[in-house]
Amino acid sequence: MADPSLLTQLIESLRRLPGIGPKSAQRMAFHLLERDRDAGRQLARIMAAAMEQIGRCERCRTLTEHRRCQLCASPRRDAGILCVVEQPSDIVAIEQATHYDGLYFVLGGRLSPLDGIGPEELGLDRLEARFHEPALREVILAISPTVEGLATAHYIAELAQDTDLQLSRIAHGVPLGGELEFVDGSTLAHAFAGRQGL
Amino acid sequence: MADPSLLTQLIESLRRLPGIGPKSAQRMAFHLLERDRDAGRQLARIMAAAMEQIGRCERCRTLTEHRRCQLCASPRRDAGILCVVEQPSDIVAIEQATHYDGLYFVLGGRLSPLDGIGPEELGLDRLEARFHEPALREVILAISPTVEGLATAHYIAELAQDTDLQLSRIAHGVPLGGELEFVDGSTLAHAFAGRQGL
Ligand SMILES: [Zn+2]
Ligand SMILES: [Zn+2]
Repeated sequence: MADPSLLTQLIESLRRLPGIGPKSAQRMAFHLLERDRDAGRQLARIMAAAMEQIGRCERCRTLTEHRRCQLCASPRRDAGILCVVEQPSDIVAIEQATHYDGLYFVLGGRLSPLDGIGPEELGLDRLEARFHEPALREVILAISPTVEGLATAHYIAELAQDTDLQLSRIAHGVPLGGELEFVDGSTLAHAFAGRQGL
Repeated sequence: MADPSLLTQLIESLRRLPGIGPKSAQRMAFHLLERDRDAGRQLARIMAAAMEQIGRCERCRTLTEHRRCQLCASPRRDAGILCVVEQPSDIVAIEQATHYDGLYFVLGGRLSPLDGIGPEELGLDRLEARFHEPALREVILAISPTVEGLATAHYIAELAQDTDLQLSRIAHGVPLGGELEFVDGSTLAHAFAGRQGL
């Protein structure tokens, strides 16, 4: 049997994208090859650069190709408010749905001792250090209301206990057990505006 | 305003894939960056190679990175039967759904004078030349039964008029006006087995 053709390899690679079945992968491959090779070339170039160059922001841990992400580096964001989220995608959702203009901190997950995810894995030492920076006034916990999320929020609230920070957590409208990423924008905006003190 | 981040560029490039909206593109980008960079690197590498190296088979006009595609080069295919299709994707559909073991010829479209698509654009001179190769016994037209498809089939049937070729066209089960690519496999297999002489 000969090596699989480049076309077959392309279809198989596209199938590794989440949510893409064999029919979709095939349609994508033929579309690019027959109608839009420029899009294919551009995707290949940017994909390669992104996989090599994108790391974590040294300040908020979101994904960025710079040492500090654009939000952390922006002079237009209010450094007095910090919103703690689980994933970089939560930042995108909040930026699109709300008028929040503070900064973020990305945990990268939720406390889950059985999976070996403890405070260190979530960067909670770094988060605690930020709690003691003088510019900070307020912390918003935008963590999914799952069991592990609630435990994580509780742990973070304890880290802030001996500070004067105003602490709140977004609440109304996010369905219990729901992932922020899949909540529609207006629900999220509502939950954000209706955050509750802890 | 700074240049868009590499992450934003990646999401925009993914959106150029057919059927991919902003949410899906975002989910793909985060999935690759956070959970499967190997898949991203592989896709980038194969995509770049495919866009540069894949051309048309000199014999059947399907997509391939070689001068002749694997089917045309295979000694196991019956060179006595030729199946004429519109698109390379039709070959994939027929190979998956039927036991056809002959060769193919890809038109790349249908006759459409108003769009400037005439016999030359579809390679009908090359197809006619193949009709006169002594090994060929049978020709199957697997062309969508649209108005233009029927006109194309009619034109091809005239090209075969002064030969001894057995000419047929697949018929049963393919919905009128339907595109082969979107017909389910068993319908297509049925249509293939029930092809009718012209
Ligand atoms: Zn940052
Ligand atoms: Zn070929």
